[in-house]
Amino acid sequence: MASRGLLDEHNSDSDDDDSLIGLEILQENRYEDFATIDWLRDTSAERVRQRHLHSQAQSSALGWISKTLGDSWQGWLVVWLVGICTGIFAAAIDIVTDWISGLKLGVCTSAFWLNNTLCCWTSREDNCETWVYWTGVVDTDTDPSDASAGAFIFGYLMYVALGVLFAFYSALLVKSYAPYARGSGIPEVKTILSGFIIRRFLGGSTLVIKSLGLCLAVGSGLSLGKEGPLVHVACCIGNIFSRLFYKYRTNEAKKREIMSAAAAAGVGVAFGAPIGGVLFSLEEVSYYFPHKTMWRSFFCALTAAGTLKVWNILHTHTSTELGAEFVCPCSVLILFYYLLYILLLSCNYPSCKPTQPHIVSIVCVVALITLLFRYPSAVLRMTTSELIHTLFAECGSGPLTDTTSYLCTLEASGHFMHTCFVLMAASAFTLCVTVFTFGMPVPAGIFIPSMAAGATIGRVLGIVVNQMVQNRTATSSFFLDVCHGETQCITPGIYAVVGAAAVLGGVTRMTVSLVVIMFELTGSVDFIIPIMLSCLTSKWTADLLGGIDGIYDQHIRLRNYPFLDGKADYKHDYTAQQCMQPQPGGEALSVITSHNNTIESLDDLLEKTSFAGFPLIQSNERRVVMGYIARRELRRALDLAQSKGIDSHMRVMFKATPGVPTTHSFVDFRSCLDTGPIQVAGSTPMEIVVDMFRKIGIRYTLVTIEGNLAGIMTKKDLLKHMESVDT
Amino acid sequence: MASRGLLDEHNSDSDDDDSLIGLEILQENRYEDFATIDWLRDTSAERVRQRHLHSQAQSSALGWISKTLGDSWQGWLVVWLVGICTGIFAAAIDIVTDWISGLKLGVCTSAFWLNNTLCCWTSREDNCETWVYWTGVVDTDTDPSDASAGAFIFGYLMYVALGVLFAFYSALLVKSYAPYARGSGIPEVKTILSGFIIRRFLGGSTLVIKSLGLCLAVGSGLSLGKEGPLVHVACCIGNIFSRLFYKYRTNEAKKREIMSAAAAAGVGVAFGAPIGGVLFSLEEVSYYFPHKTMWRSFFCALTAAGTLKVWNILHTHTSTELGAEFVCPCSVLILFYYLLYILLLSCNYPSCKPTQPHIVSIVCVVALITLLFRYPSAVLRMTTSELIHTLFAECGSGPLTDTTSYLCTLEASGHFMHTCFVLMAASAFTLCVTVFTFGMPVPAGIFIPSMAAGATIGRVLGIVVNQMVQNRTATSSFFLDVCHGETQCITPGIYAVVGAAAVLGGVTRMTVSLVVIMFELTGSVDFIIPIMLSCLTSKWTADLLGGIDGIYDQHIRLRNYPFLDGKADYKHDYTAQQCMQPQPGGEALSVITSHNNTIESLDDLLEKTSFAGFPLIQSNERRVVMGYIARRELRRALDLAQSKGIDSHMRVMFKATPGVPTTHSFVDFRSCLDTGPIQVAGSTPMEIVVDMFRKIGIRYTLVTIEGNLAGIMTKKDLLKHMESVDT
Repeated sequence: MASRGLLDEHNSDSDDDDSLIGLEILQENRYEDFATIDWLRDTSAERVRQRHLHSQAQSSALGWISKTLGDSWQGWLVVWLVGICTGIFAAAIDIVTDWISGLKLGVCTSAFWLNNTLCCWTSREDNCETWVYWTGVVDTDTDPSDASAGAFIFGYLMYVALGVLFAFYSALLVKSYAPYARGSGIPEVKTILSGFIIRRFLGGSTLVIKSLGLCLAVGSGLSLGKEGPLVHVACCIGNIFSRLFYKYRTNEAKKREIMSAAAAAGVGVAFGAPIGGVLFSLEEVSYYFPHKTMWRSFFCALTAAGTLKVWNILHTHTSTELGAEFVCPCSVLILFYYLLYILLLSCNYPSCKPTQPHIVSIVCVVALITLLFRYPSAVLRMTTSELIHTLFAECGSGPLTDTTSYLCTLEASGHFMHTCFVLMAASAFTLCVTVFTFGMPVPAGIFIPSMAAGATIGRVLGIVVNQMVQNRTATSSFFLDVCHGETQCITPGIYAVVGAAAVLGGVTRMTVSLVVIMFELTGSVDFIIPIMLSCLTSKWTADLLGGIDGIYDQHIRLRNYPFLDGKADYKHDYTAQQCMQPQPGGEALSVITSHNNTIESLDDLLEKTSFAGFPLIQSNERRVVMGYIARRELRRALDLAQSKGIDSHMRVMFKATPGVPTTHSFVDFRSCLDTGPIQVAGSTPMEIVVDMFRKIGIRYTLVTIEGNLAGIMTKKDLLKHMESVDT
Repeated sequence: MASRGLLDEHNSDSDDDDSLIGLEILQENRYEDFATIDWLRDTSAERVRQRHLHSQAQSSALGWISKTLGDSWQGWLVVWLVGICTGIFAAAIDIVTDWISGLKLGVCTSAFWLNNTLCCWTSREDNCETWVYWTGVVDTDTDPSDASAGAFIFGYLMYVALGVLFAFYSALLVKSYAPYARGSGIPEVKTILSGFIIRRFLGGSTLVIKSLGLCLAVGSGLSLGKEGPLVHVACCIGNIFSRLFYKYRTNEAKKREIMSAAAAAGVGVAFGAPIGGVLFSLEEVSYYFPHKTMWRSFFCALTAAGTLKVWNILHTHTSTELGAEFVCPCSVLILFYYLLYILLLSCNYPSCKPTQPHIVSIVCVVALITLLFRYPSAVLRMTTSELIHTLFAECGSGPLTDTTSYLCTLEASGHFMHTCFVLMAASAFTLCVTVFTFGMPVPAGIFIPSMAAGATIGRVLGIVVNQMVQNRTATSSFFLDVCHGETQCITPGIYAVVGAAAVLGGVTRMTVSLVVIMFELTGSVDFIIPIMLSCLTSKWTADLLGGIDGIYDQHIRLRNYPFLDGKADYKHDYTAQQCMQPQPGGEALSVITSHNNTIESLDDLLEKTSFAGFPLIQSNERRVVMGYIARRELRRALDLAQSKGIDSHMRVMFKATPGVPTTHSFVDFRSCLDTGPIQVAGSTPMEIVVDMFRKIGIRYTLVTIEGNLAGIMTKKDLLKHMESVDT
């Protein structure tokens, strides 16, 4: 590690040696694109900086002030800014999405940029005159199919045409300006947080295009949600703000702390669930999550949720009130359903390839099919969020809102079979369409469609149970007991909540965070037990059938990101020696011996090989490890030496050997050397090596056998090894 | 590690060598008392077991069934049992405490084993005839001071006498039967979870004595809470249940997973806050907290909270309903108050010494003083939990319960200064008494007294603000705006909640978990921002003044437990070489060379030294590390050899050297050898070494310099080093 090399140099006893040609090798903290970061190096750099600040703080009052105000508060300031900004973005996306969604159905004649709610703000009580549906219907409650045939067809056409147009623009925007804005972004965020560099993935252009594209995609009526992408949006904001502060700009490890907090804020605004957001960040997204980060994430998520509450004039995030007796034999049915879903999602893989020709036209075709089916069904015509809200709601208590009225009327109508059929068809449709939609090159989240599919089937189950109980309360004393004598004692809305949790849990394999999100979403602790049991059941079934990876982990593997999963156990009994490079018969290890290196020989070595670094050993006979030289550092040192016109036959010194007289003059390359590289014995079990990579965050380790260097293992070698043994 | 040594043996090529005398050295998993456990060894043993089960499962259907049903479900079964049992214990403790508490004031004449509520169950509406106060007063609402002088004095005497008696028995029980039952137990639980063995601390006798002593101590009226000790009780239950299952009985690392879940259940039942409990376990108590444990902890905490709800017939855990406008300039005052509290708590240290003569009499004296002051004050006469409930409650909305009525009458009386004085005196008294009580040899929690002190001062602040606002609403348009024109717009109860959170946060330095607990306790998300801000403020102030350790960490240090804090950063720039043993001038390192060991020489080595293990090196000239031999394993192997009557001059083989002909016959000690000990280079910065100890859980590391063994560093060496550099 360069920083430590530098320190050693200062302590060295031969600093004033005349025969040494010093080079001012500055540290460079930027990593290349698609590189894995060195957590050790970054945390060590931060510690050096902290020590420096600390000694300054102790020496003068000014230093103390600058440390306390200038440094310790920066983290809080950044997460506060990120929280505020995430809240504003979420509110803006909510409002614009709502407007675009409404535009498919009608327009505000007084001001086209207003959505239905705002347009009818003043004339809320009676029918709103200024909002005109494309079908010509004025009343909100009227079914469009009640309009004349011509008007109906016009409305249908406008709905489909506008929807396809929005989807087209969304795909075009993403394709042309920010390819990274596609999908939910959570797999990439996860990979980045685990210590990988993907340039421009969290940049300003991605932020803008993702936000715009998200509004268009969700507004178009495609079967996708904005919740997952909001995490990506929040992380972009986190990345952008962290650039403003030296402490975070120059240190990738520190930057990831901010991004963990931002991810929490993203989920916090997506569901109005700050605690759930923190747990999501902890459980699902983040890699290193120290306690300090947890506290800041919580602050960030709260700020974001608070800001959203203030800014979101439409108040689309109201928690559903639930409260009724609950009889739950539902796990079994949900389980089977959920299995089907998982199997279908597996078929989704081929459409996830990042590059495909005609991707924009594929989006348009999927949008066309989706919209053609959505318009005629009153259940599907509402947006997916509205659908979920409707499904969660309880009929008969409180005033019916526009969205809940349809379902409640349907349920109250007594056409039991018809109601079930409508909902099951809606669920099956959402299911099929989502499988094709998620993975298309538009910003797309899987949360909302999964929840919608689960909630629909859960509601059906609730209606069935309700019917059964109603039929029996008159005759069976058991049900009479359970319901305390009331006939209407089952709330199908709760079944919908449980179903939504089950399917979402199966797809993402979230556990505690999902339960907490559902609990914050419904605002009630009473149903936490059935929600938890359904999550458990669906997670176990999924683990049994499809491996223990959620959809995000599967996408990470699909896209071959170098992600070292911290959760899965390493179950094999290899030793380090069996997994290191080189293996017997393979290409020999490139090393640098401690003597007889010239600028030319090192240059040659870099030319001939492509390794990221070279161990420094004493001699070829006595292969004792003296240190490790990273390719990047060596390259920069060589370039510097060459630019200064130093003779290419000049010898290079990496490490001073005390007591040995220097007969030659040397170029001082000591600052390139990491003097304390991590070493493991060849007989160390791989499970310990894996733990060292995971928990300490090392990027490579040298393998020694009886004190002699035998090989090296990098993070990418390890990933390759783990992939090979797992399949 | 023995398990790996054993595996190596099976793979070795010289197994059939005639010149080897084999010994069947069985593994022993028990650690000695006050030993640190070897996480690596235990997790590795578990992995070996899992691999074995896995291969069985793949070979036969029976194996699959036994793995799935017999093994994977064990963890869930244990946490379920722990949850149920914790809930029952909590309910029992609640009921008994309530009865004992009530006994100080009066008795149920129809059945003395019933408490006030149960005694008056049937005659709830009117005055209860069967319950008789010692003062002779019948009406619940009547102040005892309204009774005749003689009756009052008799009541006073009974109150004090019974209270001191209960406190005496509590201390006597703890002193005689289970000294480990003293205090809150959280520091010890934390240390145990970090990988330390304290025998009998979590045993059955401690469980029984702690539960009984807790009922007596809380019932006696001492200023202490039952919340902290409930964590200890839950961990005892976790420990006892984990003994029933082979998987957990034989593996200390696995057992700690169950105990983490139990700790969550403990907090879950203490506050009726399962999510808060999980976060508390994660943030405050647990050391290794993988995702699987989080999920199980959640399940355990939910089960426990659910069981408590069913069993607790008194329903003492009802969440307080809060709902009113909130103007908050309170942080400043709370902050100062809290500072005072921290300073006072620091004075508490001398009373924490585990062994003291006359401890029982000290308890009685403190109880006497506490009770003498408590009876005359209506605020303090109620139990501390009731006091907190009263302080959190809102006056004027809903029916007044017995406990809230006094405070509300006082506030409504208009004697503003008097009200404030009464509350502030109560707060100051609680404060002083708690400092002396916490640390006494009775089961004692700090949560409830801290919350009471904070809530009282918060309530005073609320009353002051309320007074100010009421005086100004008529004149100031600002307050008129804030209050929407109502005069009674400030709820002092919310200030009490915020104050309680601030003081508790300052004392324990809990962050997210505290906010979540307060949020679950009050059942409302609306006040999460002020609660969070007050926690932040108090934590920051405390960190600035008293170091970053909470009271539990301070107690751990006070009692010299070998606890390696995972949170604090290692800020110094030492290298491994500078911190290892031996240091220049110190006693030389005891090593075993690979040749020429006899049973006698090894026996001698064990006699002469007291080290926990010995590195095996090639020879004294070439000090290359070949492995590590733990003292315990070697002792057992030697004992076995001696018991088999093997000649004490017989040579011992630790490692087969391929290619070297065996001219002697050897005793096979290969299974003693850990062939892959962790090694670090001498130049490795200590921050990385500390990370390895913390995150991978190693117990020792060998330090090599240029391939040669130079020293060793154990966990205890590391702790000693960290203590020396931090002071």
